[in-house]
Amino acid sequence: MTYTLYTARGSCALAVHIALCEADAPFEIARIDTRAGEQRSESYLALNPKGRVPALATPQGVLTEVPALLVYIAQCHPQARLAPLDDPYAFARLQSFNAYLSSTVHVAHAHGPRASRWADEPEAQAAMKRKVPETMTAAAAMLESMIEGPWVFGERYTIADPYLYTIAGWMEDDGVDTTAFPKLLAQRALCAQRPAVQRALAEISR
Amino acid sequence: MTYTLYTARGSCALAVHIALCEADAPFEIARIDTRAGEQRSESYLALNPKGRVPALATPQGVLTEVPALLVYIAQCHPQARLAPLDDPYAFARLQSFNAYLSSTVHVAHAHGPRASRWADEPEAQAAMKRKVPETMTAAAAMLESMIEGPWVFGERYTIADPYLYTIAGWMEDDGVDTTAFPKLLAQRALCAQRPAVQRALAEISR
Repeated sequence: MTYTLYTARGSCALAVHIALCEADAPFEIARIDTRAGEQRSESYLALNPKGRVPALATPQGVLTEVPALLVYIAQCHPQARLAPLDDPYAFARLQSFNAYLSSTVHVAHAHGPRASRWADEPEAQAAMKRKVPETMTAAAAMLESMIEGPWVFGERYTIADPYLYTIAGWMEDDGVDTTAFPKLLAQRALCAQRPAVQRALAEISR
Repeated sequence: MTYTLYTARGSCALAVHIALCEADAPFEIARIDTRAGEQRSESYLALNPKGRVPALATPQGVLTEVPALLVYIAQCHPQARLAPLDDPYAFARLQSFNAYLSSTVHVAHAHGPRASRWADEPEAQAAMKRKVPETMTAAAAMLESMIEGPWVFGERYTIADPYLYTIAGWMEDDGVDTTAFPKLLAQRALCAQRPAVQRALAEISR
């Protein structure tokens, strides 16, 4: 049984890629050239009608949405202990963290490169882009208050960590002064030392 | 053991309210007057620093984010059978559906009433508002393609159903011609017949 991860360099699919490596799951990657619009090609839309990455082809079918994929990997590979699946409160905190990343932080970031999703006029798109440093700095402050350290949930590395690592990695380009957020920077530095992170970055860069 | 659900009329907290009723969980509601800005009061921010609803006070602490709360309720009240918790693929599909509602559909809707989150200029906010009918119609079409019928996941009612019911309930006001989406309308009509939905609507309207 092998997964195929449809991914693109610089995208949030990196979080899923890292989680697959952490779980030591058998998988291959399929690169989608999002700069050339390949995510909207007929063949990719047949696979994932949303026209986005990531998508994960599994033996049962194709799955999408990062928070769902991360839990799927944790649940299918319990030996990697990537989530407190049997503790409803701890699991809800983890899910809440990841939901905040996907529905608030990633969305705030997207108003820079993907402003055309939410308004047609170039002036409106420029106005959205101008606000990204403010919204992403507010998000970074909220995340900093949530991070227990050294990992998001204290001593235990979970699927919140590769997701935070991925999205927080965009913050400098989004105009955030990350030196104000020491726990966030420390978590990122620790992540960068993990073999799974190094492997995923090498594979996507190849 | 009793929960307190911090909620506001017309908000996505309704999905959590319905789920609590479906689970026959012991809870009370605390109304937050979001039109008066109560979600940004000192006392509410002490409880939920995000300044949003819903928040759920549990015996272990306060939880936020609708997709996380829905799974928490399903996991704490397994007798209600609100989610396929032990089937990783089915659970991932459910999580994916709810993640799409929170990070794409709710976000698209929010560009009408909450455009100020993403741009300061009134003209830019007006441009975002103008695009809501288009983005919400695209979201409705995607949801229609996902709904198996009669419930989101076929014969089994899950926590995807109250969440869809809640967010799809905004669509007419968002300028969507919902008559083009029969499965979506049929799911909504079925939901409206459930005692849990009627109870939650009565409690929040009181």
